[in-house]
Amino acid sequence: MTYTLVLLRHGESEWNAKNLFTGWVDVALSEKGVEEAKRGGTLLTDAGVLPDVVHTSLLRRAIMTSNLALDAADRHWIPVKRSWRLNERHYGALQGKDKKQTLEEFGEEQFMLWRRSYDTPPPAIELGSEFSQDADPRYADAPVVQTECLKDVLERALPYWEGEVVPDLKAGKTVLVAAHGNSLRAIIKHLDGISDDDIAGLNVPTGIPLLYELDENLVPVTKGGTYLDPAAAADAIAAVANQGR
Amino acid sequence: MTYTLVLLRHGESEWNAKNLFTGWVDVALSEKGVEEAKRGGTLLTDAGVLPDVVHTSLLRRAIMTSNLALDAADRHWIPVKRSWRLNERHYGALQGKDKKQTLEEFGEEQFMLWRRSYDTPPPAIELGSEFSQDADPRYADAPVVQTECLKDVLERALPYWEGEVVPDLKAGKTVLVAAHGNSLRAIIKHLDGISDDDIAGLNVPTGIPLLYELDENLVPVTKGGTYLDPAAAADAIAAVANQGR
Repeated sequence: MTYTLVLLRHGESEWNAKNLFTGWVDVALSEKGVEEAKRGGTLLTDAGVLPDVVHTSLLRRAIMTSNLALDAADRHWIPVKRSWRLNERHYGALQGKDKKQTLEEFGEEQFMLWRRSYDTPPPAIELGSEFSQDADPRYADAPVVQTECLKDVLERALPYWEGEVVPDLKAGKTVLVAAHGNSLRAIIKHLDGISDDDIAGLNVPTGIPLLYELDENLVPVTKGGTYLDPAAAADAIAAVANQGR
Repeated sequence: MTYTLVLLRHGESEWNAKNLFTGWVDVALSEKGVEEAKRGGTLLTDAGVLPDVVHTSLLRRAIMTSNLALDAADRHWIPVKRSWRLNERHYGALQGKDKKQTLEEFGEEQFMLWRRSYDTPPPAIELGSEFSQDADPRYADAPVVQTECLKDVLERALPYWEGEVVPDLKAGKTVLVAAHGNSLRAIIKHLDGISDDDIAGLNVPTGIPLLYELDENLVPVTKGGTYLDPAAAADAIAAVANQGR
């Protein structure tokens, strides 16, 4: 008896394409991202993996990815649950800034610390500023977030994982989580027991479903899971690691 | 204190465009239907009507319509509930058949009886046949349906209306119901107290949100509600009435 979990990072967004820090800014999928999402659904069908329920963030790039992937997989009709706890990491004052420009302005060391350190958040965003979400009605029930490190993401994602995702898994459902690079890294860190240092080296490619079979203790049968298109995943992981260069 | 309800019929589907009886066959939106759905979302924004929760059927033309309309209205992140009880009327053995051909084969009287009588269902569809949904996993928790008249639709939609939609309304939420010509006619018949005879003359246009303010007894403040684009609605209602000609 195993439980089946599928993690899916949204397809390329308009700001991924422009190399801007996005975080909680609610950017749409690019045309390429739309195609990636549909292909993600086809990969589910080809692998015979049929989600019974989907969990998404409150951001349209994850929501649209799940909508398009599930439509392509003929599973558009399954129940949907959403939470800000699955959102991308809040990128603080960097939201809306160019990654390359930020690298040049602050230098390699500071840049990589903000991007990859486990517990150093970027500077907080100013409330009321253009790329802050403090007045957004979708976060009425959430605390005001002004910046996050990956540790913060893990701490706010975990209650949702335990309270909403795990019960669906234990009910025998195939669960799809359609979310973001950092909220998925947080979940993977938790599942695979990855150390605070080693998580820095883990990248999740866009649009390729990552399948986990979990044992009765919710421990992955295969550490790291299995990408449904392993060759494309390997290529994409290499590309993500070079972002901002 | 009033409650706010918005009814939205899906945009044109590939089979609307081909003039085939659709019913529970899970056909995609046409390109025109995609544009109608997006425009429906723009109409919501322009009217300042912001849904807090959406209810859909299990059919992709309604699901996609709500996805696209809500994305256009920046409300893609709201909670979603789905039920087969909001599905289009099951069209029995007519599913997949050409409307014009059916009119010629069976004659005007029989044709109009199947299309518009309140309590005469078309012949039952054969289980296991191409356009039957009896083996579809999404209906695992529903009874096997082989044909329906509008009365049947009302009887299966009403428990969902009372059990799921009304509690959301009474909680003060602006509720969007994204569904189908006949499931929406059933709800409208119930809300506006339309007689079994008079409901035959009521058509709901595609893609134009229909706004109802309901009083504390859930009686419409304005009978028939208000279309958010009244001129386009009037044109479309006339066009629907001429289908099959």
